[in-house]
Parts: sequence; structure tokens; C-alpha cells
Amino acid sequence: MPSRSIRLAVIPGDGIGPEVVAEGLKVLAAVGPASGLTFEQTHYDLGAARWHRTGETLPDAVLEELRGQDVILLGAVGDPSVPSGVLERGLLLRARFELDHYVNLRPVKLFPGVRTPLADVGPDDIDMIVVREGTEGPYTGVGGVLRKGTPHEIATQESVNTAFGVERVVRYAFEKAAARPRRKLTLVHKDNVLTFAGELYQRIVKQVGAEYPQVSVDYCHVDAATMFFVSQPQRFDVVVTDNLFGDIITDIGAAIAGGIGLAASGNVNPSGSAPSMFEPVHGSAPDIAGQGKADPTATIVSVAMLLDHVGAADAARRVERAVSDDLSERAGLGARSTAQIGDAIAKRVSG
Amino acid sequence: MPSRSIRLAVIPGDGIGPEVVAEGLKVLAAVGPASGLTFEQTHYDLGAARWHRTGETLPDAVLEELRGQDVILLGAVGDPSVPSGVLERGLLLRARFELDHYVNLRPVKLFPGVRTPLADVGPDDIDMIVVREGTEGPYTGVGGVLRKGTPHEIATQESVNTAFGVERVVRYAFEKAAARPRRKLTLVHKDNVLTFAGELYQRIVKQVGAEYPQVSVDYCHVDAATMFFVSQPQRFDVVVTDNLFGDIITDIGAAIAGGIGLAASGNVNPSGSAPSMFEPVHGSAPDIAGQGKADPTATIVSVAMLLDHVGAADAARRVERAVSDDLSERAGLGARSTAQIGDAIAKRVSG
Ligand SMILES: CC(C)[C@H](C(=O)O)[C@@H](O)C(=O)O
Ligand SMILES: CC(C)[C@H](C(=O)O)[C@@H](O)C(=O)O
Repeated sequence: MPSRSIRLAVIPGDGIGPEVVAEGLKVLAAVGPASGLTFEQTHYDLGAARWHRTGETLPDAVLEELRGQDVILLGAVGDPSVPSGVLERGLLLRARFELDHYVNLRPVKLFPGVRTPLADVGPDDIDMIVVREGTEGPYTGVGGVLRKGTPHEIATQESVNTAFGVERVVRYAFEKAAARPRRKLTLVHKDNVLTFAGELYQRIVKQVGAEYPQVSVDYCHVDAATMFFVSQPQRFDVVVTDNLFGDIITDIGAAIAGGIGLAASGNVNPSGSAPSMFEPVHGSAPDIAGQGKADPTATIVSVAMLLDHVGAADAARRVERAVSDDLSERAGLGARSTAQIGDAIAKRVSG
Repeated sequence: MPSRSIRLAVIPGDGIGPEVVAEGLKVLAAVGPASGLTFEQTHYDLGAARWHRTGETLPDAVLEELRGQDVILLGAVGDPSVPSGVLERGLLLRARFELDHYVNLRPVKLFPGVRTPLADVGPDDIDMIVVREGTEGPYTGVGGVLRKGTPHEIATQESVNTAFGVERVVRYAFEKAAARPRRKLTLVHKDNVLTFAGELYQRIVKQVGAEYPQVSVDYCHVDAATMFFVSQPQRFDVVVTDNLFGDIITDIGAAIAGGIGLAASGNVNPSGSAPSMFEPVHGSAPDIAGQGKADPTATIVSVAMLLDHVGAADAARRVERAVSDDLSERAGLGARSTAQIGDAIAKRVSG
């Protein structure tokens, strides 16, 4: 079988980003031959160092290059030496918005053998997928400051929600729900307070839901949802929610499913008009960077999602199984370095 | 000692509201003589029934009467027969905004003997107080809808934050932190995305913090905070945060501290220009209303907060001790009705 070639952009980023990305690429290389894919990699030195050197976060020219790639793997961005928000907004969110990653896909799944902070909860109890809107809501950057530094200062932030934006992400979530055994979709919002945006989400879920009679639909306020993540995670199968609520609940999701070291995500543009971007949910963790302490598992699971996205489902399953097998044996092993974990999973993948 | 008279407005509200409020009042009556206080009660029939009858949520005339009271005890509002948001915005939030409840005080404390869903966590690990801003942020209702029902619809929600509003709640939080043994304050926000509002909060925490050198200050993004509530609740002592983030994290707080049946709150106007309002964090739970199944503990703890607020600290401690003693023995008891729990705590209080 002639191997298909995929153009892969790699953005290792800051802190532990480069370390975990190295292990993700190691696993990708190990699975490569079996997937029938070869990956042509281009690495981009975006992040704190480049910002210090040139003031650039995601320059237009690089963005144009990224548009020509098939898919992107990102490590993490952010460094204490850069003011909060500069890299997040200028690089990460800019990529999500410009490449129209309107689905931020975040599985929340407890693998067998993984320790959850919840008592009396096992892998069957935590198996959901959060479909977070990725291109609007409170993340637009719309807002401003008036009378800065005076006692009369006002700072605003605007959540912008469009029928266009909500409909496409809700439709995606229904497709996901229809393909899963439980066929349940929960809208998470705060429609009793954010009445304008909440009503739009509710109405569109109802409209699109009419096309998916096999999917049962549920609603949960975001505050109650966070509680149920902890007390009854079994409630959830597919969750659809806005950009900010999705950000928040997927961190609790990570916490209950064994920690941020395992949480993977995809910033997906389902239309294919621009490359999708896969990344661990965790940040750059500068406190442990360069010490080989970071857990590369979240990045490796993100690589599995990337493989699925480019149509290599068999290879994706293979990586997932390797991760799952590795996790189920971890409890018995001592501490392993970032590279040791990557090696172990790569070995299982190729073996 | 001549007893001081307190004008108490009671808003039982909907669903389980009247049941739990009845128990709160029972405990108040039991502690009354010892507190040196007498409570002149006025009951207000606000809630779903009144809305159905008259279309009113919180009429101006009632609001004016409430202003003349010393303090308010509220049960819960909301009913499935009323469109989402009508009572929440028209009654609960209207009261918070009009009576300038700029501090929404929510203790998160695990009492001995109470079961938490977290493994390996005890009462020493969960003991914090969340100071949630109560009169601005995304709760202002500012926003709107354009081109409703068309494919070009836009719905916006605006978070409005003022130096005036942020400074007063931050100052209150520092006072609280300075009076607690750990003297630690954590600002929870999302300043890397909500840059305008986040920068305002950061700057004011820094400014006000300069007056409290004995308080150590910390910052945590809201998404990470939700994770730490589950994985490391010990991190938190006093948390100050905006209206929406406070809403969300205090529900996780309730979940880790034994459930929403125990979570109390105060909507406080520290200036005294209008009465403060105490209420359980839970909602009206129409599914169990009228069955004597609701746990009145959250309301009873709210009554303790109310007693503290009107200057009856000894009585407040007495109620808290009674609750704590009751909770520590609950595991061994069978299911008790709402009234049985109220009776038991009232008996301890008067005994
Ligand atoms: C770094 C930050 C901008 C980002 C977000 O808020 O989306 C992160 O928390 C995430 O969840 O990917
Ligand atoms: C009912 C609702 C408006 C309210 C809020 O969002 O503040 C509730 O969730 C709370 O926490 O008191």
C-alpha cells in the first residue's frame, strides 16, 4: 500500500511543551508505518522566546504557512516572563479563531488503573466527551476599558454568540452523540442569568435536536454541571457548551479523570477549510520544565485524536490501546521520566 | 438583659423553600432567648405562585418594604412552570442588585462526619470562604439579540466591572483573610482571556493588598481553580472572584463539602444601607418538594450566618455547633425528614 503523506505542523511552544511534543512525535513515528501514513513535519518556533526576540506571537506569514498544512500538533504556550494573555490571545486563541476551530473536542474518560480523586468511581462512570465551542462566546476579545486607573473605571467583556456559530457546533455534538452507545446530549449553559445567549443555545439545540430523535437531550446549568461532574459523572455522555463554560468544565473533567497530565484535546475545523490543531489541555508548567518530569500522555492521546482526524482510525486505536495498557500498569511502576513514558508507549505501539 | 428586636423578612419562595425555611425559623426560635434578640417576622409570598397570579416577581412596593427590614431569610425560587430566568432575574437577582448585596459570602467547609466525594480528604483539607462579587460582572443583564430567529442572529452578554465594585469586594475579602489563621487570599479569574476585567481585578488586588502585608496573595485561573477544588482543596483559604466564576466554583465547593444540602450563603451589604439576605445555595428542587425529604441544614447554617450579621455571634456559634454535632452523628442514623433534622438541631440549640 503506497503511504499517504500528511503535512504536519509542529508548534512545541514553551515550558514542557517541547518535551511532551517530542514524545508525541516518537509515538507517531512508531505507529507511522502501520498507519499507511508518512508525516512531513515543519517545526515552528512560536512562543515566549520568539516574542522576546521579535515581539511576534503568531505573525501573518506564519499563519499563512499553517493554512497550507494538513494538521497541527501544539505543545503548550505561556511563560511567566510574558504578560498574562499575550501568548494565549496572540498565539493560541489567534490560531483557534483564524483557523476556525469551532469545535474544541475534549474527551473526559477514566482509563482503567488510573487514580481518580473521587471515591467509589470507576472507568464505567466517567466516559464523556465535551464539545466546546471554540470561536465565539466570551473569548472574542470584544470589550474595553473606560477611565482606566480612576475610581470611575469600567472594564467590559462581551460574549458574542451567533446562530451560525452555535448551530454548527450543536450539529457536530448531535452527530457525536448519535454515534455513541448512550446517545445522550447535555447542553450546559446558564440560561437563567445569561438569558440572551442561553435562549439562543436552547432554541438551536431544540431545532437541531428535532433532526436527531434518537438522541435524548438534557439541560444543566453550568454551576450544577460542575457539581455533577464531581458527584454524578455518570450523568454525562456528550456535553455541548460555550467557549468559557467548556474551558472550565473540562478542567474539572481532567481532574476527575486522573489529572491534567492525561487530558487531550482537538481544536477541530470540521469543514476542512483550514488545518485542525491537537494539543494537551495542560499548560506550559514552567516550574517543572526541562526536568523530564512532565507526563507526555496527554500529548500522546492528542496524537491519537490527530490520527483519527486524518483518517487513520486503526492507528489511532493502536495508540489509544498502548496508552491504556501503559496506564493500567503505571500504579505498580515507580516514577518514570517523560522520555521513559514515551518510550514505553512507542514500544507498545510498534510491537 | 432587655432583648433587642430585629425586623426579619422571610421569603420562603418555591418548591422546598417553605419547608427548609420553616426549619430555619424553628432553630432561630430555639436560639432566640439566649441571643438576647427577638425577631419580628414579616412573610412575603414572592415566587412562582404569585407570578402566575399577578405577573409580579419583586414589585417595587415590596422592595420598598424590604428596605425597611433589618435582614432577610430566603428559601429558594424557581419552578418549571415559569420560564427559566423570570424568577431568578426578576426576584433573586433583583433583590441582590437593588439591595446592593455586593458580597456574596459562601463558606466551603467540610464538617466532621460528613461524606465528601473526594477520596483521602478530611475536614482539615476543606475550609475556605468564597467572597463572590454580587452586583456586577456577567450578571448585569446587559446585552441583547439582533436578527432573532434568522441565520444571522447575534446574542450578546456583557460583563460590566467597575473599579468601585471590584475595590469594595476585594477590600472585604482582604478583611476576611486578615482575620483568619492562614491569612491567604486567592484571586480567581481568567485574566489571560478576559483581559480587560482580569487586569482590573489584578490591579485592584495588588493595590488593596499593599494595605494588608500580613495577607499572602495568590492568583489562579478559574479553570485551574475548579481542578484544584477537586485535587488540592487545601490550597484555598479566602477566595475572591467575580459573580459568574463565584457562582460556578461555589457549586463545586458544595459538592466537595458534602453536597448542596449543606451549602449556606449570605448576600451581604456591608455598608448597611439595605438589609442583607441569607439563603441556602441550593435551588427549589421541585422534584422533591412537599415530601419532607429536603435537607434543611443549608438553611440552618444560613441562619447562623444571619445571626452573625445582626451581631449575635454567640447565638451563631451555638447554631453552628448544633449543626456540627448533628452532622457528626448523621452517618449512624437512618433517613430523617426535613422536620426531624430541624427538630434535632433546634433541640441541641436550646438544650
Ligand atoms: C490558555 C488558555 C487561553 C486556554 C483557554 O482558556 O482556552 C486553556 O485554558 C485551554 O483550556 O486550552
Ligand atoms: C438561581 C441563580 C440565579 C443563582 C445565581 O446564579 O447566582 C444561583 O445559582 C446561586 O448560586 O445563588
